[in-house]
Amino acid sequence: MNFAYEYNFLPIEDAIKILLESVKIRKGGFKTHINESIGMILNESIVSPVDVPEVNRSAVDGFAVCSDEVSLASFNNPIILALKKNGEGFDCSSTVQVNTGMPIPSPYDSVVMKEDARIYEHSVHILKSVPKYGNVSKKGEDLKKGDIIAEKGQILKPWHISLFASVGIKEVEVLEKIKIGIIATGSEVVDINNTHKKGEFYVFDSTSRLIYASLIEHNFLQLTHYGVVEDEKEKIVEVLKKALEENDIVITTGGTGPGERDLTFDAILNLNGQILSRGIAMRPGRPTTIALIEGKPIFLFSGYPVASFVALRFIFLPFLSKYFGTKGLENIEIPAKLTKRVTGGIGYDTFIRVNVFRCGDELCAEPVMLRGSGILSSLLKTNAFMIIPRNVEGFEEGETVWVHLI
Amino acid sequence: MNFAYEYNFLPIEDAIKILLESVKIRKGGFKTHINESIGMILNESIVSPVDVPEVNRSAVDGFAVCSDEVSLASFNNPIILALKKNGEGFDCSSTVQVNTGMPIPSPYDSVVMKEDARIYEHSVHILKSVPKYGNVSKKGEDLKKGDIIAEKGQILKPWHISLFASVGIKEVEVLEKIKIGIIATGSEVVDINNTHKKGEFYVFDSTSRLIYASLIEHNFLQLTHYGVVEDEKEKIVEVLKKALEENDIVITTGGTGPGERDLTFDAILNLNGQILSRGIAMRPGRPTTIALIEGKPIFLFSGYPVASFVALRFIFLPFLSKYFGTKGLENIEIPAKLTKRVTGGIGYDTFIRVNVFRCGDELCAEPVMLRGSGILSSLLKTNAFMIIPRNVEGFEEGETVWVHLI
Repeated sequence: MNFAYEYNFLPIEDAIKILLESVKIRKGGFKTHINESIGMILNESIVSPVDVPEVNRSAVDGFAVCSDEVSLASFNNPIILALKKNGEGFDCSSTVQVNTGMPIPSPYDSVVMKEDARIYEHSVHILKSVPKYGNVSKKGEDLKKGDIIAEKGQILKPWHISLFASVGIKEVEVLEKIKIGIIATGSEVVDINNTHKKGEFYVFDSTSRLIYASLIEHNFLQLTHYGVVEDEKEKIVEVLKKALEENDIVITTGGTGPGERDLTFDAILNLNGQILSRGIAMRPGRPTTIALIEGKPIFLFSGYPVASFVALRFIFLPFLSKYFGTKGLENIEIPAKLTKRVTGGIGYDTFIRVNVFRCGDELCAEPVMLRGSGILSSLLKTNAFMIIPRNVEGFEEGETVWVHLI
Repeated sequence: MNFAYEYNFLPIEDAIKILLESVKIRKGGFKTHINESIGMILNESIVSPVDVPEVNRSAVDGFAVCSDEVSLASFNNPIILALKKNGEGFDCSSTVQVNTGMPIPSPYDSVVMKEDARIYEHSVHILKSVPKYGNVSKKGEDLKKGDIIAEKGQILKPWHISLFASVGIKEVEVLEKIKIGIIATGSEVVDINNTHKKGEFYVFDSTSRLIYASLIEHNFLQLTHYGVVEDEKEKIVEVLKKALEENDIVITTGGTGPGERDLTFDAILNLNGQILSRGIAMRPGRPTTIALIEGKPIFLFSGYPVASFVALRFIFLPFLSKYFGTKGLENIEIPAKLTKRVTGGIGYDTFIRVNVFRCGDELCAEPVMLRGSGILSSLLKTNAFMIIPRNVEGFEEGETVWVHLI
């Protein structure tokens, strides 16, 4: 047995750190219409070219007034102002009707709501006073010219698109899509579209489909699935080579174990690949292996779906986020009270599927302890993961733990 | 002023209830490949056609054994078993090599890990005992034949696709996409693509773009944007008619106020529409109006982006979810400690943008109290909403509130 075959089980953070130091993926940016930019990674920082609002605007339907002039106005003591039209000379003894969103002409500083005034042909009786800038959206109150709307690396959300539009920005520069190639391996694994390949002993490919379906929501990625490859080194080398040529990153599922059928590892050595981490100190997902070929990372995920999902969520996506400096990919961690004791294993991070639900005045997390990383149905029954760090033995019932919603 | 113009400000739940009772949208289902079904609404319940695993399978690389036979095995007392190959007759005095995932042949009931055995040409020395079913994934342990994998109404997530694949289901019936027409209104509103229309007093359309961008992540919707329509009743009637013909639901932005420029309401009456709720008891978003024309709902959202976003999130999506019986659209509510006092208004639900962050052993929610529903930048600075219900005056600093992450 070759030394290179031995696991070293790097901790997750160390594997990510080594990846960040070794990987070389260069992506350019391109200009795109803001309506096409949702979910893409912004490749420039965007500052507001204008104040928002650009001028003082009315926040209601009503009458623009000088607040000092109407300071004593009340129902019993209406202040009478001359009603002017736009284009006529305005002064504090007059008023002009304004609708919501309309600029406030000088010298007015505030707006009396329609229902607090009585309109006559040439005059308006103001029945209520208004403070200075009352009912006015002030110039720059939402954004000031030069304010940062979105930083480089931001994964664009609906409100970014809306803000770009509101300040008149029609195009932004986004990062080219990151190309991900996905390869399933295993002679016993059958793609659901190729059922004629079913042998006596087979399983359908569900793991690479889980990876594919999990990544497809990210608009900044471009996915290519290379189907299922048999456990023959030449075939794996061939597909891996093609996938590396066509993508920035390759993910394989299956073939990570120490068994003689686990040839993906061999294929990588064959292509002069460098192993960054043979195994990761995590459970499930211990055989997860990370390699590098000509600057491009290859993630060897377990053939087991849950192990693979954990590696995707807690290694692959955090790596992507850090490497490309993205903002907005991380989810907030949530505290919840454990409903029963859980134990992990010293030396590796243990990921436990939990079902988070409201219990009285807090959230509870019910661990779903199912044997084996192959238990795909556990993802149906749970809505979060909790982590027992590798230096912690476990958590007691009633303790607060931090969970990641899925 | 017509009676119909007067606001009635129904509470959110009442507006949704009336909608559910009045709306008539009929959608059919269609069969689609599971790889195309992500984010769609499942239109049938799916049960597993098989046990998963279908047979007892090895969970490790090792040797299949009868557990009773090796119960006394230890490093110092190896149990010697004859090494058989597949096809040869198996009995408890023999063993056969199995790899991870391989079926366990009869009469074996458990698997000894490779590292706990020594292999010779025709025999294997077992160095460790193993309990019955040790290292075995038992038939049906993940799913039993007939178990429900996904219920009708489920919005399909990556693990559903993966599960369908794992049990050999290639196609599922999903609901036809729900067609949503979006119309921006307002003579002062300029689409960012039609900047030649800029008048002296204009604002860019950011609100309908926020709605569009917020809905586009939902694969079960099909969106059509009808651009910006001027405040002319005939033009609004025309576009509204077209949008109603081509869609199941129409959303308009702007034109919900009591002002004379707010003509969307008139246009609906003109089309013999029925007003279900003129205004909603919520802030922001009070002018939100809901109407019905020939069974199809029309949501009149405010021209202000945040008001519109709140209406989308807390009226439109919950209505959709309830009407189509979807599962998986709701987000879990999170408890967080308020960092300062907030007050609402008796009689209406107040939505307050908050920034949720980790503070020691819990989450804190910092309210971002910005005047006006037009403050789009508040969505940049916050990551959640909290609600002050209409029968509650407010919450004190330090109280636990429940927030909705955005």
